[in-house]
Amino acid sequence: MIQPQSVGIVVPQKARFAEPLPLRSGGTLNDYELVYETYGALNAACSNAVLVCHALSGSHHVAGTHAGEPGSSGWWDNLVGPGKPLDTRKFFVIGVNNLGSCYGSSGPNTVNPATGRLWGADFPFVTVEDWVDAQARLADRLGIERFAAVIGGSLGGMQALSWTLQYPDRVGNAAVIASAPKLTAQNIAFNEVSRQAILTDPDFHGGHYYEHGVVPERGLRLARMIGHITYLSDDAMAEKFGRSLRHGKTVFSYDVEFEIESYLRYQGDKFAGFFDANTYLLTTKALDYFDPAFEHGGNLNAALARAAASFLVVSFSTDWRFSPERSREIVYALLHNRRDVSYAEIDSAAGHDSFLLDDARYHALLGAWFDRIEV
Amino acid sequence: MIQPQSVGIVVPQKARFAEPLPLRSGGTLNDYELVYETYGALNAACSNAVLVCHALSGSHHVAGTHAGEPGSSGWWDNLVGPGKPLDTRKFFVIGVNNLGSCYGSSGPNTVNPATGRLWGADFPFVTVEDWVDAQARLADRLGIERFAAVIGGSLGGMQALSWTLQYPDRVGNAAVIASAPKLTAQNIAFNEVSRQAILTDPDFHGGHYYEHGVVPERGLRLARMIGHITYLSDDAMAEKFGRSLRHGKTVFSYDVEFEIESYLRYQGDKFAGFFDANTYLLTTKALDYFDPAFEHGGNLNAALARAAASFLVVSFSTDWRFSPERSREIVYALLHNRRDVSYAEIDSAAGHDSFLLDDARYHALLGAWFDRIEV
Repeated sequence: MIQPQSVGIVVPQKARFAEPLPLRSGGTLNDYELVYETYGALNAACSNAVLVCHALSGSHHVAGTHAGEPGSSGWWDNLVGPGKPLDTRKFFVIGVNNLGSCYGSSGPNTVNPATGRLWGADFPFVTVEDWVDAQARLADRLGIERFAAVIGGSLGGMQALSWTLQYPDRVGNAAVIASAPKLTAQNIAFNEVSRQAILTDPDFHGGHYYEHGVVPERGLRLARMIGHITYLSDDAMAEKFGRSLRHGKTVFSYDVEFEIESYLRYQGDKFAGFFDANTYLLTTKALDYFDPAFEHGGNLNAALARAAASFLVVSFSTDWRFSPERSREIVYALLHNRRDVSYAEIDSAAGHDSFLLDDARYHALLGAWFDRIEV
Repeated sequence: MIQPQSVGIVVPQKARFAEPLPLRSGGTLNDYELVYETYGALNAACSNAVLVCHALSGSHHVAGTHAGEPGSSGWWDNLVGPGKPLDTRKFFVIGVNNLGSCYGSSGPNTVNPATGRLWGADFPFVTVEDWVDAQARLADRLGIERFAAVIGGSLGGMQALSWTLQYPDRVGNAAVIASAPKLTAQNIAFNEVSRQAILTDPDFHGGHYYEHGVVPERGLRLARMIGHITYLSDDAMAEKFGRSLRHGKTVFSYDVEFEIESYLRYQGDKFAGFFDANTYLLTTKALDYFDPAFEHGGNLNAALARAAASFLVVSFSTDWRFSPERSREIVYALLHNRRDVSYAEIDSAAGHDSFLLDDARYHALLGAWFDRIEV
């Protein structure tokens, strides 16, 4: 094995689709664009493609760096590259920005071709299933009839799972990581508070804040702070910050006293500076809506009967956003249907964020799983 | 045992204190008032007094109802009364509103005697220890040298614990329920997001919103919504709300779709209509600051060496705000010091809120514990 390397400088590409895309929310996107990146080369048989699905705040930029932008490494750069677990010497890897996102694909911060103005709050609700449909059209465009694998963590894992249900013949293998078959009431509750923070920000203007020259930064900042609490485990927070006091003692002020406050404010401020509030709203709704068992009367066994892929399901011991128990629900439903599934619960202190980290056992597992895929 | 009854109509009383109260934050309250209620009668030996300490949004109104206000039952009415676990035929029970609160005791929404204007954001930071000092002065005023017991849940439990450290000779028994010896980083994180919601609300005006004729309702509402997520267990939310859809299906809207959203909005709206934002800020800070082990280099064993009371420590199995593990920290430190302590972990689905509920095993335990106290 060579020393793992970066895929190097990468250039995002854009595909425009003129055929209407019907959406689960009832609307239709008549004309839309998807931004994507690819790493490695598609083989002659077109049999080595791997789709990487992104989570709430992710994008198409999975690996490598953008020219002239130091520090612009992709969000899963530790996983994807020559000699890395998802080895680009063997696989042709695709990252695609989902509809409704804010990184270049059609979304609230792009122009509605029908009006010539920014979509804003008029961008339609999109679901995990809609994203998968759009990804399938991109696959068609790239000449990929069947993916060797689809992989994703968290909301990305929901897309990987949904691929196996919507297009069972087009997915050979699916890795569903740190994910869940649907949100719990508590998951929805956290999303709802985040949405309310944005929706009630006076700068939100019903989602048409672009026209007012403002951004609901306060709301977006609070949403991200709430998110970060759920991404880290209680243990990880205790280990990273504990009750460390910035001034060594309490100073009786609403400025930063405990280091955890500084961390949250920093993450909130940073995020509010670049992410789009309408995208945050749409994406949390897509999370809330995902529930493939719903149309089967809540029966997940029945819902997963359509899946034909070989599965890898991975959870992390301290993930309380999507706990191991939630992953096991998926595993049990697959086993009930006698599907091929490997399950690993990785012992990690980092909580939900673990799926993004370079844990040796986790990456060894993924590497072995990808190695066994014949292309 | 008689059929448990209410203490009936109760009338809050007010005590004014003109002797300066030094505060841990460095300031002094020169002149302050405490609102309190009492239930039952103080015996001739003044040996049957029980102090009930309230939590974040609680008050002096522990039991009974206020005249002309149907539905105004005290927050622990199920516990306190004739024939109830804290039996007012035996005990003289006192509820006192803490300094900085918004239910009548001196706080941000009361007049600063030095200026003749509302305190607002100028009300000094107060700590658990300050509250206990003020409660001790009220005890002096009422002729109570030593409490038969001090009891509290959550932040109230911290006060009960602190009583045994600040005034070890004045507490015979202490019940520390659903509490912790200090907040974790995650606990502080939730408080911090709640504070930021209030502090960044444009209607906050640096805490002097009274003068502007507005209230930071948006921030207070979000703070309460976040709070409610941490008061309920994941299981309790699943049982009460699950993924129940108001319209039986997804309707793709930011109005209420899932019932949990309705619950959170209702709780947030209600709270924002009556609670004071400055009090919320001060009280979450008091929570963050509480850490009796701090001045002992983090050694809780050393910190609790001063305690002389007989303890009851109670936790609830699904409480993830202050988990059973946190209560056991207190128990272990007391055992290390060979103190008298009983510990019970109550199997309850209701999460942190359990301490307020009328659970049969929990109340039987409290009743038995109070029964054994000789007055």
